[in-house]
Amino acid sequence: MTVINKVFTVKTQGYCDLINITEHVALILADSGVGAGVVTLFVIGSTAALTTFEYEPGVVRDMNELYEKLVPMKKGYHHDATWGDANGFSHARAALQGPSLAIPFEGGRMFLGTWQQIVLCDFDNQGRDRKIAVNIMGE
Amino acid sequence: MTVINKVFTVKTQGYCDLINITEHVALILADSGVGAGVVTLFVIGSTAALTTFEYEPGVVRDMNELYEKLVPMKKGYHHDATWGDANGFSHARAALQGPSLAIPFEGGRMFLGTWQQIVLCDFDNQGRDRKIAVNIMGE
Amino acid sequence: MTVINKVFTVKTQGYCDLINITEHVALILADSGVGAGVVTLFVIGSTAALTTFEYEPGVVRDMNELYEKLVPMKKGYHHDATWGDANGFSHARAALQGPSLAIPFEGGRMFLGTWQQIVLCDFDNQGRDRKIAVNIMGE
Repeated sequence: MTVINKVFTVKTQGYCDLINITEHVALILADSGVGAGVVTLFVIGSTAALTTFEYEPGVVRDMNELYEKLVPMKKGYHHDATWGDANGFSHARAALQGPSLAIPFEGGRMFLGTWQQIVLCDFDNQGRDRKIAVNIMGE
Repeated sequence: MTVINKVFTVKTQGYCDLINITEHVALILADSGVGAGVVTLFVIGSTAALTTFEYEPGVVRDMNELYEKLVPMKKGYHHDATWGDANGFSHARAALQGPSLAIPFEGGRMFLGTWQQIVLCDFDNQGRDRKIAVNIMGE
Repeated sequence: MTVINKVFTVKTQGYCDLINITEHVALILADSGVGAGVVTLFVIGSTAALTTFEYEPGVVRDMNELYEKLVPMKKGYHHDATWGDANGFSHARAALQGPSLAIPFEGGRMFLGTWQQIVLCDFDNQGRDRKIAVNIMGE
């Protein structure tokens, strides 16, 4: 059994920046040499989230519009009143979408669909160096 | 420590077909002979998701109505314009709900509530042979 | 490799009671003596969920308002017709948010952001002794 933790950083632009991180994760998995197990992903911070979707410009726009419908940027949030921030929407979007994914793998390959990519959702109102923790456990 | 991967297939009808897969998972866990650890579930593909709820017809209808309210089938999605598809809604629903679950178990039994079932959500606009990857890790 | 399961209980008030459980989890992790691996959290029951957010009163109110917008308490749910219950909204909210989180850790510390707390969401329409299963796996 092997347990490996890595943290990688992605430069983001914020405002619902949806970024395909599949290759980052696949490379860390390949480097680990672990054959079968689970990749656990966790985005560090409270204004970003993780999910999977077919990463093409149409779905990227659809997800932007969906988050705007469910959690509009301009609504006015209590969080903004607390801190004088203006990113209340990004906290609520991140909490709703959730910070973690767990993906089994076999033969060094994650069980992703052909059109299924791992996507970092940076909802903040500014760019960031966003950190994602990756744990690989298996044998 | 033991690491086991299995993939099982469920025949679905699409259009928000919500299917109780608890017994599929419980059988794979029982066959593994592993006593304590974590079951990780991941649905392969970008138009389906996983969650848990009390699997009775009322909640099934409520969840259908909720997904329709949040992500209507007929709205018109950019994904559909990209590919000439008509399943943009199913991509957005799947991304919002998320593809993975992680469930601890002890004595060969998952820590599910009495009225809490594992549910596959097939949001696509056609039936499929839907594949779910199951990883069992523990001792 | 070590595998540890613990279940802890939190007294809740229901009605979208959002409770910071970070310290509960951190203490169980510290007690385990395991250095590197993954903490898997799963809330037992079908009317509660888990997520992370910056736990301050503004975000707590924002999340209450968001759940009320997406899944209103008073809408009338098919689940309530099935059982004569009145907590259909809490089932739908819990299913949408999801029951599990997986958080990598290193040096005995979870990879949480400074302003990122683990939050139990009790959506039920009554107080409960809510049980959360915690699995720690690693070395």
